Amino acid sequence: MQESVDLGPEQCTLLLGAGITGRVALSSPDGPHIVPVNYSVVGEAVIMRTSPYSVLGTYGRGSMLAFEVDWFDHERWRGWSVVVRGRANVVTDPLELDRIRTTWDPQPWAAGARNLYLRLHWSEISGRQIGVGWDPVETLPVRRAV
Amino acid sequence: MQESVDLGPEQCTLLLGAGITGRVALSSPDGPHIVPVNYSVVGEAVIMRTSPYSVLGTYGRGSMLAFEVDWFDHERWRGWSVVVRGRANVVTDPLELDRIRTTWDPQPWAAGARNLYLRLHWSEISGRQIGVGWDPVETLPVRRAV
Repeated sequence: MQESVDLGPEQCTLLLGAGITGRVALSSPDGPHIVPVNYSVVGEAVIMRTSPYSVLGTYGRGSMLAFEVDWFDHERWRGWSVVVRGRANVVTDPLELDRIRTTWDPQPWAAGARNLYLRLHWSEISGRQIGVGWDPVETLPVRRAV
Repeated sequence: MQESVDLGPEQCTLLLGAGITGRVALSSPDGPHIVPVNYSVVGEAVIMRTSPYSVLGTYGRGSMLAFEVDWFDHERWRGWSVVVRGRANVVTDPLELDRIRTTWDPQPWAAGARNLYLRLHWSEISGRQIGVGWDPVETLPVRRAV
């Protein structure tokens, strides 16, 4: 068993900002869904691109969402995770879209039109580290040039 | 951009059965939550251990849940994900608990009492591969001796 400690908001923001893929959870009339997505962080918001007809595009707009990134080392029973929660809105303001595109346009890997920009402005951010004596920031596989 | 293909149920089951950590999504009165968990697969069900007082223990029992595992290669824009959905129930039958423990007892890494066994018997299983010409099974970092 490993000790588990809460991460502070600054460390959570750093880990969240360095990621590329995460998972978004949403509630729909037939229960929760979980969808892996590419994302970027602009200000205190997670930006995702999707199609208006996807599960995320249909039930995600104007709704509360939860978004998660994590890293686990199965050999050493170590890991960290960061979760943000908040309401998501469709970004339509051209100035805001410009800001997103110049900061970091989230690039969907899969082909297909994903012209709906969802912005999850978080009202909660929390994170947890399992196993102590090491720095979660050192696990980041890819650093973004910000 | 990469081509995206659906994975068949057999491949989904194989990938799901080889994993150790995943994320479970649940709906609560204040919106969806997403929780990283250790898990095991017994029959056509995902088994998770949690505390009765956790978010998962409180809102997960008797509810629809979605559970996800994935793998991504950020360098090559490749990845796969598998999602199952279904209703979760608390396992209380001693014979069933014995079966779970002898098959593979999900081991929470973090310290703390997690004596509630939740079983997500899936009614849907689906998966997706992004990028083609490679086999998702080759990406499995850890094989279970089943």
